[in-house]
Amino acid sequence: MGRTSDARNKILNSAATLIEQRGYSALGVAEICATAGVPKGSFYYFFESKQALALAVIDEHWAAQRRDWEKALSSEQDPLHRLRDLFEATEEVQRAGQQQVGLVAGCLFGNLALELSNQAEEIRGRLQEIFEAQIDLIDRVVVEAKEQGQAGPSVDTREAARSIVAQIEGRVLLAKLLNDPAQLEMLWRNTLDLLQVPAQARPVID
Amino acid sequence: MGRTSDARNKILNSAATLIEQRGYSALGVAEICATAGVPKGSFYYFFESKQALALAVIDEHWAAQRRDWEKALSSEQDPLHRLRDLFEATEEVQRAGQQQVGLVAGCLFGNLALELSNQAEEIRGRLQEIFEAQIDLIDRVVVEAKEQGQAGPSVDTREAARSIVAQIEGRVLLAKLLNDPAQLEMLWRNTLDLLQVPAQARPVID
Repeated sequence: MGRTSDARNKILNSAATLIEQRGYSALGVAEICATAGVPKGSFYYFFESKQALALAVIDEHWAAQRRDWEKALSSEQDPLHRLRDLFEATEEVQRAGQQQVGLVAGCLFGNLALELSNQAEEIRGRLQEIFEAQIDLIDRVVVEAKEQGQAGPSVDTREAARSIVAQIEGRVLLAKLLNDPAQLEMLWRNTLDLLQVPAQARPVID
Repeated sequence: MGRTSDARNKILNSAATLIEQRGYSALGVAEICATAGVPKGSFYYFFESKQALALAVIDEHWAAQRRDWEKALSSEQDPLHRLRDLFEATEEVQRAGQQQVGLVAGCLFGNLALELSNQAEEIRGRLQEIFEAQIDLIDRVVVEAKEQGQAGPSVDTREAARSIVAQIEGRVLLAKLLNDPAQLEMLWRNTLDLLQVPAQARPVID
């Protein structure tokens, strides 16, 4: 049992790395198995198809990222600073990835959303759920910020949360294109603007 | 001569459509030629490689988009309304694409930036130039807006232009993922926030 779940994990990890580096379409099951050091014959023991593997990679990645997001967004800090913590953690992930392989990998979900939305309905559905969950997590913090007078009174919290997620994705795209994690540094400032944070509630940005 | 340039155009047009629908990596030269109705043997008469074709597709697409951007951004309108015109034109392009094939295709440059940044250095370089040119075009309008008191006095025009381009890309990603061009509707409102447009200069949004 230990050995079989080892093989499954090896396939998952290799697929995650390869998908991050080269996308989904360019990969074949044979290459994933070769990278994982697992016989190709055993692939279909663990996964019904390449798409089933991609869904498992997405789920694993989201389980880990969701924990990070919840940790940043449920701390004792005030709402605006919790958002700042989320952005700093996001930048740190891209910076660490760059240090490891020399390249900013970007966001797995954003990469796959643009690559596969119009080709793989099940993957699109899963990614829709994940982005909606991200918007939920941020919305809750924006609601708190608004209740505490840290966000403008006319801010639509749901739309603002959606705009913040869009801003993260757009900035991550630039970070990947320019191989420059510093493209994420403006996220907090952008968010203060998008939330119409009143001058008296606006934190000093260092 | 007429016939050879016809064949080149057919290859270019088929490649543009196929890349938009399925990305770059999943395509082969044989499929592009079959879709174009051009013998595969003639492909290399026009293009040195699949990558050279992709660069030509990118250049053609940018030449047309640049014209649209310049048209919207150099009208007689005040700066903020010129930006609104750009966003409406962008939404219209996605809506027209959706009506044609049933799916929002997204932004060719954003799609390729996430797919190829870490795999094709020449394509990455070309896309970097294009995004920089987009930021330039918006920056000029933001500078005007600031001079006219339509943008906040402390706005960094270059960074604001970069944030607006990021917001466009992020919103187009959501539009593609959700197959919903209306995801672009918030772009103008977001931009008014990102530019810290003072209350007295804020246009009524209908």
